[in-house]
Amino acid sequence: MKILGIEHIGIAVNQIDERKDFWEKVLGIKLTGQENVESESVETAIFDSDSGKIELLESKNPDSAIQKFINKSGEGIHHICLKVDDIESAIGELKIAGISVIYPVPKVGAEGFLVTFIHPKDTGGVLVELAQEPR
Amino acid sequence: MKILGIEHIGIAVNQIDERKDFWEKVLGIKLTGQENVESESVETAIFDSDSGKIELLESKNPDSAIQKFINKSGEGIHHICLKVDDIESAIGELKIAGISVIYPVPKVGAEGFLVTFIHPKDTGGVLVELAQEPR
Repeated sequence: MKILGIEHIGIAVNQIDERKDFWEKVLGIKLTGQENVESESVETAIFDSDSGKIELLESKNPDSAIQKFINKSGEGIHHICLKVDDIESAIGELKIAGISVIYPVPKVGAEGFLVTFIHPKDTGGVLVELAQEPR
Repeated sequence: MKILGIEHIGIAVNQIDERKDFWEKVLGIKLTGQENVESESVETAIFDSDSGKIELLESKNPDSAIQKFINKSGEGIHHICLKVDDIESAIGELKIAGISVIYPVPKVGAEGFLVTFIHPKDTGGVLVELAQEPR
């Protein structure tokens, strides 16, 4: 597979409005989008440095993965996302390497990317998202 | 301040040798350096995607920040590092915003970068490193 770079870092927050000023005003990273991602029951705010994004994630459902993460660990880094050229072929290569992904059929994530996740047990404690840009 | 992008994501591991294959062989991200960073009592291995790096961090001292992190939380994402154009001016701007950094005088980190850190209490649970490329 071809990893094209770090697409974003996903950060779980209680409230986007409470945390966005640090990234946007203090660090001066441009807020380029805010949207609901129904498939993950989250609201996202995306700050684009032009070389990797910061994605704040606020839960919209008490049963969402983000809310469960915050209940257990508090606010903080939830996952990293790597951009791939072809997500189907990446999933196939991972399968050959004995690594299963959380969505064997990629889902549509924020900004229309096709995404899946590799479980932390296979990476050394890191939830790794793979994302292919919409075509 | 000018944030130039995500420089790297720092991941605490028990042993680099145990974890490097996932990043290098499975994901195919090029290993571009391995070095001891005396100032942080760690060994680092750096995988460069050409658009953001993954930095594995192995403690070389039971009192290091990385070992304390692993003792508390296990292996996983330890910090994110943002590249800045001018670290002295970034530290000055943060001070004006009421945010103190962990090293008011930047230290020399991996690959000769000048670095400091913003405490998670000021960011929403994320340890944020700022780094200026060596000139």
